[in-house]
Amino acid sequence: MKSSRISVKNFHADDSFVGRVQKLVREEVIPYQYQVLNDALPGVEKSHAIENIRLAAKKLRVEDIGAEEFYGFIFQDSDVAKWIEAAAYALAAEPNPELEKTVDDVIALYGSSQHENGYVNSYFTIQAPEKKWTNMREAHELYCAGHMMEAAVAYYEVTGKRELLDIMSKNADCIFEEFMHHNTAAYPGHPEVELALMRLWRATGNEKYKALAKHFIDERGQEPNYFWKIEEPNRGWNVWSGSAEQDSDYTQSTLPVREQKDAVGHSVRAAYLYTGMADVARETEDADLLSACRTLWNSITKRRMYVTGGIGSTNQGEAFTVDYDLPNDPVYAETCASIALMFFAKQLLENEHRGEYADVMERAFYNTVLAGMQLDGKRFFYVNPLEVIPGVSGKAVTHRHDLPVRPQWYACACCPPNVARVVSSLGAYAYSENETAFFIDLYAGGTVVTEKGLTLTCRTEFPHYGDVRYTVSGNAETTLAFRIPAWSENTKLTVNGEELALSDITCDGYAYITRAWQDGDNVMLTLDMTARVLYASPKVAADSGKVCVQRGALVYCAEEADNGEILPLFVREDAVPEALGFEPETLGGIVPVEIDGYKAEDNGMLYSARKPKLTEKKLRLIPYYTWANRGENQMRVWLPVK
Amino acid sequence: MKSSRISVKNFHADDSFVGRVQKLVREEVIPYQYQVLNDALPGVEKSHAIENIRLAAKKLRVEDIGAEEFYGFIFQDSDVAKWIEAAAYALAAEPNPELEKTVDDVIALYGSSQHENGYVNSYFTIQAPEKKWTNMREAHELYCAGHMMEAAVAYYEVTGKRELLDIMSKNADCIFEEFMHHNTAAYPGHPEVELALMRLWRATGNEKYKALAKHFIDERGQEPNYFWKIEEPNRGWNVWSGSAEQDSDYTQSTLPVREQKDAVGHSVRAAYLYTGMADVARETEDADLLSACRTLWNSITKRRMYVTGGIGSTNQGEAFTVDYDLPNDPVYAETCASIALMFFAKQLLENEHRGEYADVMERAFYNTVLAGMQLDGKRFFYVNPLEVIPGVSGKAVTHRHDLPVRPQWYACACCPPNVARVVSSLGAYAYSENETAFFIDLYAGGTVVTEKGLTLTCRTEFPHYGDVRYTVSGNAETTLAFRIPAWSENTKLTVNGEELALSDITCDGYAYITRAWQDGDNVMLTLDMTARVLYASPKVAADSGKVCVQRGALVYCAEEADNGEILPLFVREDAVPEALGFEPETLGGIVPVEIDGYKAEDNGMLYSARKPKLTEKKLRLIPYYTWANRGENQMRVWLPVK
Repeated sequence: MKSSRISVKNFHADDSFVGRVQKLVREEVIPYQYQVLNDALPGVEKSHAIENIRLAAKKLRVEDIGAEEFYGFIFQDSDVAKWIEAAAYALAAEPNPELEKTVDDVIALYGSSQHENGYVNSYFTIQAPEKKWTNMREAHELYCAGHMMEAAVAYYEVTGKRELLDIMSKNADCIFEEFMHHNTAAYPGHPEVELALMRLWRATGNEKYKALAKHFIDERGQEPNYFWKIEEPNRGWNVWSGSAEQDSDYTQSTLPVREQKDAVGHSVRAAYLYTGMADVARETEDADLLSACRTLWNSITKRRMYVTGGIGSTNQGEAFTVDYDLPNDPVYAETCASIALMFFAKQLLENEHRGEYADVMERAFYNTVLAGMQLDGKRFFYVNPLEVIPGVSGKAVTHRHDLPVRPQWYACACCPPNVARVVSSLGAYAYSENETAFFIDLYAGGTVVTEKGLTLTCRTEFPHYGDVRYTVSGNAETTLAFRIPAWSENTKLTVNGEELALSDITCDGYAYITRAWQDGDNVMLTLDMTARVLYASPKVAADSGKVCVQRGALVYCAEEADNGEILPLFVREDAVPEALGFEPETLGGIVPVEIDGYKAEDNGMLYSARKPKLTEKKLRLIPYYTWANRGENQMRVWLPVK
Repeated sequence: MKSSRISVKNFHADDSFVGRVQKLVREEVIPYQYQVLNDALPGVEKSHAIENIRLAAKKLRVEDIGAEEFYGFIFQDSDVAKWIEAAAYALAAEPNPELEKTVDDVIALYGSSQHENGYVNSYFTIQAPEKKWTNMREAHELYCAGHMMEAAVAYYEVTGKRELLDIMSKNADCIFEEFMHHNTAAYPGHPEVELALMRLWRATGNEKYKALAKHFIDERGQEPNYFWKIEEPNRGWNVWSGSAEQDSDYTQSTLPVREQKDAVGHSVRAAYLYTGMADVARETEDADLLSACRTLWNSITKRRMYVTGGIGSTNQGEAFTVDYDLPNDPVYAETCASIALMFFAKQLLENEHRGEYADVMERAFYNTVLAGMQLDGKRFFYVNPLEVIPGVSGKAVTHRHDLPVRPQWYACACCPPNVARVVSSLGAYAYSENETAFFIDLYAGGTVVTEKGLTLTCRTEFPHYGDVRYTVSGNAETTLAFRIPAWSENTKLTVNGEELALSDITCDGYAYITRAWQDGDNVMLTLDMTARVLYASPKVAADSGKVCVQRGALVYCAEEADNGEILPLFVREDAVPEALGFEPETLGGIVPVEIDGYKAEDNGMLYSARKPKLTEKKLRLIPYYTWANRGENQMRVWLPVK
């Protein structure tokens, strides 16, 4: 049963968990990131992204711009795009004329950097106009364009302002001309534009954009390989020197997408691609393509995903490796990759409402995505390890990317604005609807308006507590479909106080309630928040003999700040984890978990036949998303058992 | 108490363990490797090492050699050197006129490639005579020279033939001239020549060589850094492109050697350097230098060594990383590095007889070094992982170097001939002596002649059994010092059937027996061969919740060939490993060990709150050195405990 996500405008968070994170993004992250994009924060990694656009606009007018140069990664424009998109969603939550004016100014600046024919990209405009479209594999032109299309759609959706939408439509027309009429075998090295073109199509109704998205997806991986057989021999320049071996897995272009069986290569590229595929599959009723998406989904979520919803086991290519190779550290599990996994999950949900998609979306969001941001909104993780040992992490040559604390910014700054936009638009991920039903995919306190004219007010302290109460305003006969997460083993659902037999109404993880809803009706969903010990498949070598604890959507971890050194700690076999009370002052408000365990003595020997003495110890666990907020310390998600 | 190793000529192995491995090396490995060096084995990685020397000799005579080129790594000569050295030791064990003739021919060929001034190196002679000595950091000229000096000393020692000794003395004179009079701040990027010069000094009595060894050691790491501050800016060529960052740890040149506290960088370079340092310390009575050696020894053996005696935790730079970072896979633990660790251990023993040095030497030899060679002597490991999962090992981008089975040869073929030479010369590692005592450092069946005129005949099936019986021939009043390994918790020592109180006569791991030894005396050493469970320090994150089994000197592992899939297996908490009887037909003859454990069911879920069902299972373990002799299969040294 197909469905569509709701508009971000139709959900307004209250002051519970999601609302608080959205507020943090509005009040701290968006202003902070705007300063970064303008190089206005001393001591923070330089971005120069706004200045690049200014320079490109200048170059278009005066040509000779002297010694001024583009600065940063070739995809620096995309940081501005994601910031605009996040700002758009923030404006949906709360009017902010000053922010809106700032965005309008950035858009005007961006528009002034657009070429006559619609082309727009600050790197190529400033540095290498003659090289545009010649390096699809590395140069990220379509990636940057795609992100700005997303920003344009978001800003138009929220404010009704068309300027950026028009700029990006003109840009999309330029891209259409290039790739549908000239360079027809080409497709982007970093997928993103596919999903963005689908959004642009939905916003404008222009069928060309859907056709172009489908074209890029269909061309990908066809023989002869575009990147290595057609483009590379004719190019004569590279963005990155020493692109050693011809790795087409890296860009998911070894095979046509319908023939791909395993999620491979750069994990963000992969999940952005699959998102676009799932969208095209839905909108073109392409069953083969949807089937390919399901295969790739299973490859990720059944064999290549961390318990935190992280994906990408290695920094070498920021990539997937092989089945069940899920080392806790070193690891990659890029924040962007889990965001992309949420996108993919949501697109699959829109194809067919199955709880497993929402379960993974939730897992990725509440663990890796949120862990990507410091609780104060001012520092960010790119890499999200499941184990950190200061002295090894960030130090050993194999662990230089696995940092024990969040930096303020990154030279390659894809993740921070990505977190901002996904948090700000969470309503669109939390709900979907079609002609017959309104779906609750995630639990987010606040108010949501349905197409059928109902308004649902959700009150919940999820993810810390499992009571989710919906109150209906308005009257309509329709179906409300409540997701029942797989982790909730004992779930209770009442309507106006009357308990429903869940097994009778639940299908594929959703409980469907069809009735003539009336003003004042209420639905109470009581999720099972029992903290539970999880076991990994024995095929996961890294987790042999270890367990982790999950409570509701939250995966927990043990940190040194609470327990002293983590490495000597064991969980007691068959110990039952126990959730403590909510601690409002701890880490922004959490429910810690305790579990019985042991601490092994350290006899000072590297290897010894003497069994280490164990002393009993209660281990205190905190939600993974709150780790590394108290300075460098040892952290483990998976703990050995004794 | 200082001592000296015995001459390889003074030990003759019988047909027990060491003798059998030596015989394998003589009969299989040395002929096989000679064929490889001559490119005579189709389908095996090409070496071309002999042809390079022929070409260099030709170049010296005719200059224009047409299109013929040097082939292989810049240190290809060193493979020939190590082969000659191994062949020399083989000749000590058993006359072989054909082999001796072959070696003589290779030496004559090598001599004809020597320049008038003593310089000899096939790469520089053929490809770049004008560049010699300009790239100390990368070009391995002194490394190749050092290996050939070692070969020269060995061949002279065994055969009395001086030709190669004279060639290498002339070469050493040339090196002395260059580095003591001209390029005095320089030292080798790959240490090796230091230890070789010490051997050459002992063989020739020429004090210059000792002075030169000391000079290289003293110059290393002085400011300004020779490699990066002096050489690099003046060079204009590199052996390897993209030597990215200025990593002076890689070559152990960040600090003067006396100030170095941690074993860092390329682990083979490190241990060769430390070996040279320990030798110079002994021979120059340099207490500071010995103290630095002890510090580095502790860094390795107390914090950076695998239980198999492997060193070097990462393939990135084939290097040490940081304390307690000992992942079982990926790993490096290069065969050569454990050989170098044996060298270092033996040099320290010669400085001061402490059992811990011999214990580590034994650990490295019986585990990683022997694992470096297939039981048939025809395949070799470069990297020695402690865990292998086919499908991950050798496949995942992070595990490409961790192979599940031994290849026939390597483009960079340092390890195979290194194994051959250390096995063939094991007598020199097994015994040492000084004016007052004769030391038994390792247990090796066979006959050894002492300086005091005693002949000891050792009968033992060590490492499979712990009875070691020595019979004395001749008469002399002297001390025999028997090593009591730390792993032998209950050791019995009798002289002519009468048990001695070990605690009265044991100091630092050696039992000293001083008496007027008479023809027919016998000493019976009964080592404790109880198989024991070992625990790693809690600081070793990779081994949390895991144990391994050691019996005597042998570390054991579980292989799929014996147990089915290894990943679901656990050792039962407090299970007592039990040694089975000797199985002559299994893996060349081993004593397998059994231990109670469990197999976890695989419920097919990647993560699950359902505790996996366990079924009892006896695990069968085999000595680590015999792993991967039955095709690709899962293997683990460290096993999780339930």
